[in-house]
Amino acid sequence: MEKVNLKTEKLRKKIIKIFRKFGLNNNHASISADALINAELVGAYGHGLSRLKMYCDRISKKVINPKPKIKTKKISQSISHIDADNSIGFVAADLAIKKAIQNAKKTGIGLIAVKNSGHYGLSGYYAEQAVKKNLVTMIYTNAPPAVAPHGALKSLFGTNPICFGTPTGSKIPFILDTSISMINRGKIRVAARNNQKIPEGVALDKFGKPTTDAKKALQGVQLPIAGFRGSGLAWMVDILSGVLTGGNHAGRVKDPFDDFTGPQNIGHLFITFKTNLFVKNYNTRIKENINRIKRLPKIKGVKEIMYPGQNKFKRFKMNLKKEIKIAENIKKDLEILEN
Amino acid sequence: MEKVNLKTEKLRKKIIKIFRKFGLNNNHASISADALINAELVGAYGHGLSRLKMYCDRISKKVINPKPKIKTKKISQSISHIDADNSIGFVAADLAIKKAIQNAKKTGIGLIAVKNSGHYGLSGYYAEQAVKKNLVTMIYTNAPPAVAPHGALKSLFGTNPICFGTPTGSKIPFILDTSISMINRGKIRVAARNNQKIPEGVALDKFGKPTTDAKKALQGVQLPIAGFRGSGLAWMVDILSGVLTGGNHAGRVKDPFDDFTGPQNIGHLFITFKTNLFVKNYNTRIKENINRIKRLPKIKGVKEIMYPGQNKFKRFKMNLKKEIKIAENIKKDLEILEN
Repeated sequence: MEKVNLKTEKLRKKIIKIFRKFGLNNNHASISADALINAELVGAYGHGLSRLKMYCDRISKKVINPKPKIKTKKISQSISHIDADNSIGFVAADLAIKKAIQNAKKTGIGLIAVKNSGHYGLSGYYAEQAVKKNLVTMIYTNAPPAVAPHGALKSLFGTNPICFGTPTGSKIPFILDTSISMINRGKIRVAARNNQKIPEGVALDKFGKPTTDAKKALQGVQLPIAGFRGSGLAWMVDILSGVLTGGNHAGRVKDPFDDFTGPQNIGHLFITFKTNLFVKNYNTRIKENINRIKRLPKIKGVKEIMYPGQNKFKRFKMNLKKEIKIAENIKKDLEILEN
Repeated sequence: MEKVNLKTEKLRKKIIKIFRKFGLNNNHASISADALINAELVGAYGHGLSRLKMYCDRISKKVINPKPKIKTKKISQSISHIDADNSIGFVAADLAIKKAIQNAKKTGIGLIAVKNSGHYGLSGYYAEQAVKKNLVTMIYTNAPPAVAPHGALKSLFGTNPICFGTPTGSKIPFILDTSISMINRGKIRVAARNNQKIPEGVALDKFGKPTTDAKKALQGVQLPIAGFRGSGLAWMVDILSGVLTGGNHAGRVKDPFDDFTGPQNIGHLFITFKTNLFVKNYNTRIKENINRIKRLPKIKGVKEIMYPGQNKFKRFKMNLKKEIKIAENIKKDLEILEN
């Protein structure tokens, strides 16, 4: 985590204290707090403080294990399998990306599968860690049912993000972290909390009718990007992160907010490799790639062609100086959780 | 290649003879003919016989090397780098997928980068080969400019397919092979040849205006799926297959039909891994995954929820029995090329 301002540091300490109170050790509490603070700083509020109460509730109800015995099985110098023992997702993902970095540094490539994990926030957050170590990375995770497979009337796929990161030869990494859903489930949840509408064409209600009502959309179905293609990409992510890893799949990942009948057993897959495996001048090449694209003629009104991750980085840098704004309902959550 | 009927076999022999005449050795001619025939059989006509003349023209104009000295450099037991010496793309991709299979069988994972290659047809064709050997595979290739980056008024990305394949525990493999363009460039080309219209909302003309005229679309810009997200996925593919491998990138891949000023130097990336690295019962798990999804309630009019590759497999099996229909203009090409 980058150095934050005093007020943010105070908030971070408060979150650590809360996680400690719920039984996480100091290291795990700190990893989890960092991930939540980072989500706030990049403006991904659906993955930030709005989830803190949920994590604590899941620990209380024994469906997140605050004292996990995480096992890392070495398959080869490049490949490892992590059984996260139902830890909070942040801890599993933090361990996995570190192992993926280590294996790639050693052998050129790392492949890490994780099972018995939970929601870990933003894939891009872990991708950034690999990119800082000068690695290319691809990350897949599944999630609770939110998107209907093409042709189906019922949600089954999660928003199943596809994440890809690479160094750019500049300070700002290229981090593509795109849900295959037309809209992020977290955003719908925030809209529902704040009684805001969602855009048209992104979701259906539980009867299969288009809706802009966030609450109805949460009970209904989110639409995949690009019809059959997006549905196929979501299916791919479910296979890579669920079927392959030993995690839950095919709609069996429980909704962390609504379903406390058991652990989520989410699966993740992390692939990392060195940038200089095949060319010596990767950084020069990617700089040239980005510059050529940025120099293209632009559509009227477009100031700059942005690469994925660029906007988020700007938001992060700007927010780093400010105080994190906390919604009233979340302030109440914090007070209750603290005491 | 599966066994084809007598008439198809005759056509295959004819194509081999043509490639031989243009200087390919018997093995390379046979690999290339198989790929073209396969494209016809799966109904991907834009990647089939409609390209034969182009390949021969490029050989004649010395921008495809009929006698390549292909070099395979071993980076590790898992990782190899192929310099295809401007071979016809089919030959480079055939070698690469075989190497990717070999490396994965040996170490669990294979990562093969290819540079100085050309258009290789359908990624799915190579994915099938890995899947038949019980491997999961991911394949990336770039292509000549066809799609405008988000915010740009000029094409730069190719249709840059994302390809993913996995065994399913049944005869029909799961093969997702999806262009990030709203429409396949090959399909626009076929429509232009046959004076057919293309759907609305998939392309702009060279002035940036929406068009359904296939010829105008070829001079203009194809739109990416899902706006900024699709543009990001196309960018990812350009980086993985071009920047990383040593191939051309950032719009420098030449159009094989229109630009004979030099070789294409397309790059490809092949990733393969074993299905049983992390679970012992992968086939059971994926069968269950597919069955659960197929059993979902369906939208009115939908008979079956299909997984990627299923329709293509059905078409292939059906077409295998039939004679391949050849358009008149292509018949003429064949006659000229033969004599």
